[in-house]
Amino acid sequence: MAVTGVLRPGFVQIRVMDLDEAIVHYRDNLGLDLVRQKDDFAYLRAYDEFDRHSVVLRQAEEPGLDVLGFKIISDAALADFAKRLNEMGVKTDDIAAGEHCGVGRRVRFSVPTGHVIDLYAEMELSDNGPMTKNPDIWREEPRGMRISRFDHCAVLGVDIAASAEIFEKALDFVVTERAIDPEGNPVAIFLTCSNKAHDIAFLAGPVDAKLHHASFLVESWNDVGHACDLIAQRNISLDIGPTRHGITRGQTVYFFDPSGNRNECFAGGYQHYPDNPVREWTVDQLGKAIFYYEKEVHARFTSVLT
Amino acid sequence: MAVTGVLRPGFVQIRVMDLDEAIVHYRDNLGLDLVRQKDDFAYLRAYDEFDRHSVVLRQAEEPGLDVLGFKIISDAALADFAKRLNEMGVKTDDIAAGEHCGVGRRVRFSVPTGHVIDLYAEMELSDNGPMTKNPDIWREEPRGMRISRFDHCAVLGVDIAASAEIFEKALDFVVTERAIDPEGNPVAIFLTCSNKAHDIAFLAGPVDAKLHHASFLVESWNDVGHACDLIAQRNISLDIGPTRHGITRGQTVYFFDPSGNRNECFAGGYQHYPDNPVREWTVDQLGKAIFYYEKEVHARFTSVLT
Amino acid sequence: MAVTGVLRPGFVQIRVMDLDEAIVHYRDNLGLDLVRQKDDFAYLRAYDEFDRHSVVLRQAEEPGLDVLGFKIISDAALADFAKRLNEMGVKTDDIAAGEHCGVGRRVRFSVPTGHVIDLYAEMELSDNGPMTKNPDIWREEPRGMRISRFDHCAVLGVDIAASAEIFEKALDFVVTERAIDPEGNPVAIFLTCSNKAHDIAFLAGPVDAKLHHASFLVESWNDVGHACDLIAQRNISLDIGPTRHGITRGQTVYFFDPSGNRNECFAGGYQHYPDNPVREWTVDQLGKAIFYYEKEVHARFTSVLT
Amino acid sequence: MAVTGVLRPGFVQIRVMDLDEAIVHYRDNLGLDLVRQKDDFAYLRAYDEFDRHSVVLRQAEEPGLDVLGFKIISDAALADFAKRLNEMGVKTDDIAAGEHCGVGRRVRFSVPTGHVIDLYAEMELSDNGPMTKNPDIWREEPRGMRISRFDHCAVLGVDIAASAEIFEKALDFVVTERAIDPEGNPVAIFLTCSNKAHDIAFLAGPVDAKLHHASFLVESWNDVGHACDLIAQRNISLDIGPTRHGITRGQTVYFFDPSGNRNECFAGGYQHYPDNPVREWTVDQLGKAIFYYEKEVHARFTSVLT
Repeated sequence: MAVTGVLRPGFVQIRVMDLDEAIVHYRDNLGLDLVRQKDDFAYLRAYDEFDRHSVVLRQAEEPGLDVLGFKIISDAALADFAKRLNEMGVKTDDIAAGEHCGVGRRVRFSVPTGHVIDLYAEMELSDNGPMTKNPDIWREEPRGMRISRFDHCAVLGVDIAASAEIFEKALDFVVTERAIDPEGNPVAIFLTCSNKAHDIAFLAGPVDAKLHHASFLVESWNDVGHACDLIAQRNISLDIGPTRHGITRGQTVYFFDPSGNRNECFAGGYQHYPDNPVREWTVDQLGKAIFYYEKEVHARFTSVLT
Repeated sequence: MAVTGVLRPGFVQIRVMDLDEAIVHYRDNLGLDLVRQKDDFAYLRAYDEFDRHSVVLRQAEEPGLDVLGFKIISDAALADFAKRLNEMGVKTDDIAAGEHCGVGRRVRFSVPTGHVIDLYAEMELSDNGPMTKNPDIWREEPRGMRISRFDHCAVLGVDIAASAEIFEKALDFVVTERAIDPEGNPVAIFLTCSNKAHDIAFLAGPVDAKLHHASFLVESWNDVGHACDLIAQRNISLDIGPTRHGITRGQTVYFFDPSGNRNECFAGGYQHYPDNPVREWTVDQLGKAIFYYEKEVHARFTSVLT
Repeated sequence: MAVTGVLRPGFVQIRVMDLDEAIVHYRDNLGLDLVRQKDDFAYLRAYDEFDRHSVVLRQAEEPGLDVLGFKIISDAALADFAKRLNEMGVKTDDIAAGEHCGVGRRVRFSVPTGHVIDLYAEMELSDNGPMTKNPDIWREEPRGMRISRFDHCAVLGVDIAASAEIFEKALDFVVTERAIDPEGNPVAIFLTCSNKAHDIAFLAGPVDAKLHHASFLVESWNDVGHACDLIAQRNISLDIGPTRHGITRGQTVYFFDPSGNRNECFAGGYQHYPDNPVREWTVDQLGKAIFYYEKEVHARFTSVLT
Repeated sequence: MAVTGVLRPGFVQIRVMDLDEAIVHYRDNLGLDLVRQKDDFAYLRAYDEFDRHSVVLRQAEEPGLDVLGFKIISDAALADFAKRLNEMGVKTDDIAAGEHCGVGRRVRFSVPTGHVIDLYAEMELSDNGPMTKNPDIWREEPRGMRISRFDHCAVLGVDIAASAEIFEKALDFVVTERAIDPEGNPVAIFLTCSNKAHDIAFLAGPVDAKLHHASFLVESWNDVGHACDLIAQRNISLDIGPTRHGITRGQTVYFFDPSGNRNECFAGGYQHYPDNPVREWTVDQLGKAIFYYEKEVHARFTSVLT
């Protein structure tokens, strides 16, 4: 396989304070399909994903990120990654198949920034996924923000170099972009396991285990604008956008789910290959790096975290 | 590496009957940079590519495809692919580093459909490639059709199953889509070595060694429309478009270079992962597969080949 | 008033052979609102129109155009236009207020090409029209092809010069573009009563009283592409597109309603002012005039009429 | 004429502090053609305008608006407007033909907010305007921000009701939207003489004779995004955007010319007709009115004026 090992961010499990309200947001605003609601959990999927679900919402007292799951190409590779993690001194836990509906066994570990990561090789296919026999471009016209996929998360914590190192050394991720302070410490590290400009981003901050945002893919700048129209007309809480990133070059809008978790609609971004040079940013250019148009970052973007 | 082995279609060498006229087309219409012109060769590069060149034009008596080059992640992997090819009974030739300006050693082989393929692990970086220090989204605004990358080729020949098998078994490509006639013979096979919907396509036809088209990436449907505006206003020879593919879901326009080689401007297409099911087409739906809007294929599209 | 006299094409009454099926098409595919269905009539309205309706469907044995209605700025102006028509020798009939739901008195006349035209100054406002107090950009997200307005009709007949003359001399329309054959006879005349590139088009043909197409406005090239996606995915009968006109410069797709009446989704086109020169086309360039990309007109476009 | 009287904002004369630098901005960034530079004046034109020029830059000590010119349909109408102005007590001055290159006689007056307005019926046609014989969509691909037309100005002063009244009563403009404070005083009045959502806007403020912005038309939201790309990459001073207006529904970006005059790139906006209701805004919703996405107005937008 030319694309192998870790395939993609496969699911994100987000804590929400009112599950019904959260379902309305992710289903009707983002346009995800509700696959199943059971007990404190709701499972959702974007129209262009083959797997059974990519978003898990959990009813909880506080918002935030429970776990970020990465799909692995095979069970053998999963076993190998567990071994490599352990050899690096990263403790792993096994979660039995079926504990999440439709998901095979998971290897769970935590990174130094306090985020919980699951690796898994098996998930049931959706019975409503993209057509495979003389397929139409979609079964039904995408609705809401017309999200096609769950794309990535940006997470925040103290020792991002240590967390990124695990993704690089044990999981074969590649750094695509990096912002460095004058002392040479990273303030942001973007990593990919694919041809995408990023599959996970680590942002340096004073507290660990924080979710900065969960990002969802839309087709184009036009759909970013459409998402903004919906955000405004439906009184969804806007953070910033429409705008563009210097990092990744993606076109973007940020907003909040009803529990205060930050969402992103994202389009574009370059194709990345592992032979590409790393793109380096200095902190004096961090405004441009994050918001290419505004060239400055507003306080809420760095202070509101879940 | 999660993306490893064969990275991408790295260059295409196209025969043209008037090199100067071809340079004008690829530089001013497609918007590629002319890197170097030397003897019977011209080397060009798209603005979003790090490597020195991705298009080689060769002055010749007849149009067509000389060779399609794939970039390999490392010299060790290159050696391994040569070995695997040989083990499959595919003879390889070595081309010394430097025979193409700026390109390392190449492993050359032919597939049963008569197409010549080069594998190589080294190419000089462009000194005008994407910025890597506090980068802008581009150094200068893209011009012409605003091509960002050379994307893929579709090639035509008799035994496409045999050619595709080599890409699958020796080079770890994955079939993304396939069209099958009532006897079960493939009439089109799309393969990827990345997250793109295709990195090479084989189309069944009565003659071997033919180029159907060389495809170039643009950012969006809007830029497909802009390419059509230029095609019309500059009297470039249009084949078909703007339209959309059922296969890959890409948005597209086809036109001809001054020597009659078919070019494509292509946007969109889904993200592919190796755990995705293959999408299968039956020949009665081939019209929809190729031109999702028109649902039929005009004669020129299958008969004009170089 | 700087915009005065005839304001716009206000409604089109189209004959359909199955009213229920037609309602489904105009409501769900085009995205119009069904205002009322009564006896053999259905009334529909686009989301961005203030007036009660703009499309009237009438159950009939044959498809085609019953009448094209133009809204006049005032009843006084309506009376004046009737007088000017009569002075030109054009006979007018009075239709009493209320014969169409919500529409005031109408002045009806026929043009030499056999088309029936209504002028009227009064129509009830929709109770679901665009918001006027701290308005959102729309009450609800546009659906289907996201039609914002009924835009214009193109009609076909023998003596188009005579019909156009009535619009120019009695109704103050201005010719924006004209195609002329080598003998100096017009083969197409585009006229406007506004800043739009056309409000009505006359096409020369061997039979009178024909509808070539009823055209509906969408926001952008992106929405033309989206209309094409729906046409393909819902198996709506496509005529041609997406493409672009030389005349008006508009971006377009043509398709058929279930009774065979041709519809257009149209975006763009220049702003016209009455001090602009007329744009003239010669018939050898009629392909470019009509389909700027293809530069030729397919037979169906001139032969299929209702 | 259905469109008659005042046709459009025909030119804007802007004071700049460095004429050469300003020419670079308006020519290369906005993409206007430099028609002529003579003494302290430069004349420019957008690619889709027939008249000789639409922007006049004048070298001066201070930035700001010298005069806003409106094209009248005929000299007879011009004389009539002068008479109506005088009858309203508005003094007019005559400026002889030829004082501006290529412009006929002008009738000049001032409005209570201190802005100088010229009316004129004659301007030479550009010899490089839109093609009129078998025209292409443009002679050459638009460059820079791809401005197609000068669109409108927003001007600021104390007694905007009095200024707007002159445009309504003497010049037949129609109010399209209005924002009202709790005492019933207008804080913003948008007026049109066409089917555009606005041809001039008056904003209430503490000082008279101020220019808020000069606005230029682009084709689509995509071109608004492209303008933002250029603004960022060329370090043009951004005010705000890309975003959308509640008023007019237009998509927009604001930025400054090198002398500090605010420019806007604007796309979209509804079609207005004089039988449409006025859209009314209350000041508590002024944020939404001005920036539909952000729902608040930043201080610079109301304080930086020229």
